Amino acid sequence: MKGKFIVFEGCEGAGKSTQMRLLSEYLKEKGVAHVVTREPGGGEISEAIRKIILNGKFTEMTDECEALLYAAARVQHLADTVEPALRRGDTVLCDRYIFSSYAYQGYGRGLDMRFLRDINRYAAEHFMPDVTLFLDIPPVRAFERKHGADENDRIEQAGAEFHEKVYRGYLRLAEEYGDAFVAVDCSGTKYETNGNILSILRCRGLIA
Amino acid sequence: MKGKFIVFEGCEGAGKSTQMRLLSEYLKEKGVAHVVTREPGGGEISEAIRKIILNGKFTEMTDECEALLYAAARVQHLADTVEPALRRGDTVLCDRYIFSSYAYQGYGRGLDMRFLRDINRYAAEHFMPDVTLFLDIPPVRAFERKHGADENDRIEQAGAEFHEKVYRGYLRLAEEYGDAFVAVDCSGTKYETNGNILSILRCRGLIA
Repeated sequence: MKGKFIVFEGCEGAGKSTQMRLLSEYLKEKGVAHVVTREPGGGEISEAIRKIILNGKFTEMTDECEALLYAAARVQHLADTVEPALRRGDTVLCDRYIFSSYAYQGYGRGLDMRFLRDINRYAAEHFMPDVTLFLDIPPVRAFERKHGADENDRIEQAGAEFHEKVYRGYLRLAEEYGDAFVAVDCSGTKYETNGNILSILRCRGLIA
Repeated sequence: MKGKFIVFEGCEGAGKSTQMRLLSEYLKEKGVAHVVTREPGGGEISEAIRKIILNGKFTEMTDECEALLYAAARVQHLADTVEPALRRGDTVLCDRYIFSSYAYQGYGRGLDMRFLRDINRYAAEHFMPDVTLFLDIPPVRAFERKHGADENDRIEQAGAEFHEKVYRGYLRLAEEYGDAFVAVDCSGTKYETNGNILSILRCRGLIA
């Protein structure tokens, strides 16, 4: 693979889309060919799987089924979108990847981590990102950014607890994976955060 | 679990539907509460996954994606259909199960068997059938039964080779799993085959 594979992770509302847009603008300015994509989704098959995962009627979906669907969408997205781009030499910016499964299905829902590693083996063995950028914002602050502080009451208690578990999960992944999974300081403005991301990428030789 | 879990396996056209119907008629006559179901499918979620798996447009689907979708549909089908029935004490007759993944995705498509066991761990650890009945008919004969001998030329060579691999896979599973996976003699009429199945089930105390 010639291209660089850069993944963005973080809680809902952490600013992944904004930071991916700012990085994409930077790469465009520098003339770096790149693809911006997201999980679950990408091609037709992954989008069809995405619709099942997100279908609001499917409240009876088991945690195992959910995790397997994410893994299915992931492996297809790799084949349809990520791998061809990397082979062309493009940089790939991907919103969520394997670490979302560890954080949400593992730490959030309590599924066995070994099971998650097993079902994501193809991704984990052949397509580990060059770097995963974790936008380190606790879920309460992230929700404030997303909805505005006045809508905070709409976050149900169970929902908030779940997102708190996910966040703590991300912090543990940052400890566990060290250099491959970097917590990005997001305490400043979005432009300062963009600056932090550019420094990290430069430092690793992933951008000029 | 109080109920009995009986699975039917075999190549396309081996007569699974017919044999399930004959067994269902027998159970009805004897007043045995039972559920007839199939994989992939069952509830709303599994049926939605089934539609993706069988969608003729999705020719780019990777083998790994396919296997993960089957595993997702399987775990959901267990939760929605099989487990509630077994808890009620009903007998469950299921058209295809975990061994179809081993035969089709493993022996047929050449996916790593350990990967298939891993992704189907929940089913394999918690819901192994009381018996799996393999309707032992080589694929050519099975196709003849299904389409009539004059349509045999429609079977493409690649397709026929694949089904041959699947069949040989089933034979190896019968060796490997011994008593849990029984090859049923299907050389006679459908009623003789039904008789063979009833003998096997009686022998194991699965029917009166």
